[in-house]
This record gives sequence, C-alpha cells and structure tokens, in this order.
Amino acid sequence: MGTITKALELLTFFSSNQSQIGLTQFVKLSGRDKATVHRHLTELEQNGFLEQHPESRAYRLGPALLRLAAVREAGFPVRALLRPVVEGLSEQVGELAHASLLQGDALSPVIHADPRLHGTQVHFDPAEVLPLHATSSGLALLAFADNALRERVLSRPLSMHTGHTITDAATLRRMIDDVRQTGISQLSGAFDEEVVSQGAPLFAEGGRVIGAMSIAVPRVRARPDRDAILGRHLAEAARKASLSLGAEVQDLPPLFHAPVSKLPAD
Amino acid sequence: MGTITKALELLTFFSSNQSQIGLTQFVKLSGRDKATVHRHLTELEQNGFLEQHPESRAYRLGPALLRLAAVREAGFPVRALLRPVVEGLSEQVGELAHASLLQGDALSPVIHADPRLHGTQVHFDPAEVLPLHATSSGLALLAFADNALRERVLSRPLSMHTGHTITDAATLRRMIDDVRQTGISQLSGAFDEEVVSQGAPLFAEGGRVIGAMSIAVPRVRARPDRDAILGRHLAEAARKASLSLGAEVQDLPPLFHAPVSKLPAD
Repeated sequence: MGTITKALELLTFFSSNQSQIGLTQFVKLSGRDKATVHRHLTELEQNGFLEQHPESRAYRLGPALLRLAAVREAGFPVRALLRPVVEGLSEQVGELAHASLLQGDALSPVIHADPRLHGTQVHFDPAEVLPLHATSSGLALLAFADNALRERVLSRPLSMHTGHTITDAATLRRMIDDVRQTGISQLSGAFDEEVVSQGAPLFAEGGRVIGAMSIAVPRVRARPDRDAILGRHLAEAARKASLSLGAEVQDLPPLFHAPVSKLPAD
Repeated sequence: MGTITKALELLTFFSSNQSQIGLTQFVKLSGRDKATVHRHLTELEQNGFLEQHPESRAYRLGPALLRLAAVREAGFPVRALLRPVVEGLSEQVGELAHASLLQGDALSPVIHADPRLHGTQVHFDPAEVLPLHATSSGLALLAFADNALRERVLSRPLSMHTGHTITDAATLRRMIDDVRQTGISQLSGAFDEEVVSQGAPLFAEGGRVIGAMSIAVPRVRARPDRDAILGRHLAEAARKASLSLGAEVQDLPPLFHAPVSKLPAD
C-alpha cells in the first residue's frame, strides 16, 4: 500500500457516528505505528483535509473537502441531476429511495429521500458506505460492471452484515446473472435484517455503470405485487437518471424501456 | 514537500473553469516529472479522489469527496448552520453575502446567497479560493487569527489580483490593526476591480477564528452611508453565526454587540 493510500485511508475512519478521532484511536484503527500515523495526520491537516480541535487535539474532516466536493459538483453535477429523480421516485412509491456512486470497491450514497408516509421507515445513514455483495445497489452495479471489478469483489472473503447476508460467491454469481437479464436486483435482510430493497444500475457517458439507485422498504410493507410495481418505477427513474448522466438509450438494459404501471392505492 | 502533500496538491488544480485535467496538463501545472505525477494520480483514483474518463483519459474529482464532505457536515454541520444566516443577511441587505472557512493559508467559500434585486450583481465563484491579503474576508480573519498565520502570510510575496490589490505588508498590518478594533474589514477593488466588500470574522469553540462572512457590492452601488449600515448587518450576522458555531459572547469583538440600524429605503 502506497503512502498516499495509507494517508487517505485515515480519512475513511470517519463516519456519522464517529466525527472526531484522536491520534491513539487512529493508531489502533490503522494498525500502523504512531510516528507514521502522526506524520500522515499532520500532512492531511496542513492541506485542509483534517482539522484539529484546539483543546481536545482530536481530528475531524477538514474544510478542503467541502470545497473539492463543490468543485466536482460544479463540473459534473451528479448530485444536482440525481436529486429530483430520487425525490420524484420516493414520492411516487412512498418509500425511501437513494442513489449512490461507485467509489473503489463500494458504493457511496449521494442522495436519499423519504416521504415518511408510514409509521415505520428505513433508517438510512448517508455517511455509510454500501458493500457491493450485501446490498441491492451493489448487485445491480456488479451485474453491469466490468469483469475485473466483479472478480475482485467475489474472490475476496465477503463480510457478513446480518444472518441473511449471502457470502457464497457462486450464489452471488447466479444472482448477478439474473440481474443482468432483468435490470433490477432484489435483496431481503442482507444488509439490514428488517429491510427489503431493490436496486437498478446507473449508467453515464459511454454506457459505463457508475452507481446505482435503490428503493428500501421495511420488511412489514414488502409484498410481491407491490414490490413488482416499485421495481418498475425504480427502472424508470434509473433510466431517466442515466440519460441525464450522459448514457445513450441503447446502453440501457431492456427492462428499463418497459412502461411503468400505476401503484395500487394502499 | 511530502508525498501526501504533493498528491493532494494535484486536487487543488481543479476549479469551476477546469473540471477535467489530463496527465500532460498535470505535469505542466505541478512542474514534476511524468512518472511521479502518474503514480500520484493513480493512487488518488484508486481511492476515489479522482476518476478517469473512459475515453479521453482525463481526470475529474472523484465521488469519495462527496461522501467525505457529507460525513464532515453530519458531524460538524457548518454549512447547515451558516446557510440560513447567510441567506438572511443577503435578504436584509439586498446584496451578495457569503461565508468561507480557513483552509491552509486561504479561505474556501462554503455558502453564498444573492437576492439578485439589482441590474448588476457581483459574480461569485464558489469554487475559487479567497487569498487572505486581497479579500475583506481574509483581512477580517487575519485580524483575529494567531500570529503564526498572520506572519506566515505577510512575510511572503503577495499576489496582485487587480491594480488595487495591496501587496505592501506594512500597509496591510496597519489595516489589520484597524480591523481588530472595529471587527469589520473593508476593501475596494482589491480582488475584483469592480467590487467593494466588507468582511467579519467567524469564531467557533474556544473563540478560535475559523472563517469569515462578507458582503460584496458592485462599486456602482457602494456609498459610505449605505456601506456603514451593511457593515452593521454583517456584524450582527457574524455574531449569530459565531454563537451557533460554538463561540461564547465574550469571544466576540465589541462592535458585534452594537445594535443594528434599519437599512434606508433605496
């Protein structure tokens, strides 16, 4: 692992639940020696990627990230393009919808919306990275990703997230083959025991898959007939988003072109 | 300069006007050899800080930045805290208002708002970094920053941005001393020939200055009496923002506590 990767990896230890991290904890999390970690933290801090609390000496993510995220969005406004589609989808289906982008070997959430119409709702943490093998977004992406990524992900030991996470590569390969036919993935309780979700790939210029869009429903509201209609709305939304991200109609899987039925009244 | 800094510096070459950069151009911009630059770009790309266009091979900023910016904002919601204050200020004064955070030796914009009430308005690029010596935000920050930062900035050759940029350290020192008394900085045409602006420091926990808030007005609308009232509104907004960022009342400069007058009808 290169020096740059080691330093950038330190940034990934932050999450919604862990917004401040001290030197000792970084040493523990990274498994590297204190002097090296301290040198990396100092360089990240000098470049605005971290900032240090004046009293506690703990680090948090720095303001450089806000600026760079804004610069990316100004040149390639994925978030601005996806927001209305994700919001429209969640309104249509009355459930949590989200979109995420491939980052390394996982998906990073960029937009989520939940109309909160029901007594229970899926808890979605936008700061949490989605593992490819354990989420419907991930399977939708893997079905249309290049072989290198798919093989890299499936040849490694696969993490368990619930009692229903599928960690057998052969089973996942069969599921991914199915998703390639339909354009839509489905998983039940694989990342969160109580959640059923469907995913669809997002394509950009050149037909390249760059992320996924999903609908996540509390298990208590999942019913095959309703799920089928939700899936059609999801495919329609992923189609619209992909075209605005620069994909051509012929890049999209066949199901994306089928008409969308109306949701039955609940 | 360390390896990590060299790599992170490559990210700073992106701007609103330059959202894609190829290898050759990176080599030119950084002044470093091609093999090193390519190695750094590859590591940044593998970590999601860059992504490469499949055909043109040009790089753009990557999705990891969106996630890290969201994680920072979840733990330390500066943008969410500043947005209503900046928007309220711009509505009150009918002019462009913005807030920026210290990043290294410059300010990074995080929020701007412009009610667009007038025939001319200040062009504000949220992706552009604000140099400390040439902007009212920068002078407001320097007046309350620690000596080390002030001396580092003032002891270096200072960049000219217009014919009115002040690059003489002694003059800047006197201006900064004045700002320390009043709490509000003023500059005319120093960063953009046609713009007059006022800045106020933003404080956080422990009374530490972390950024600045400004109002920028086209020169044609600048009048001493109106500017004075704008400055009072600015101080009031910076006071409110600082308190919500964790500063205590006694950390703030005296002018921040003066009452705000009403703007006269235009």
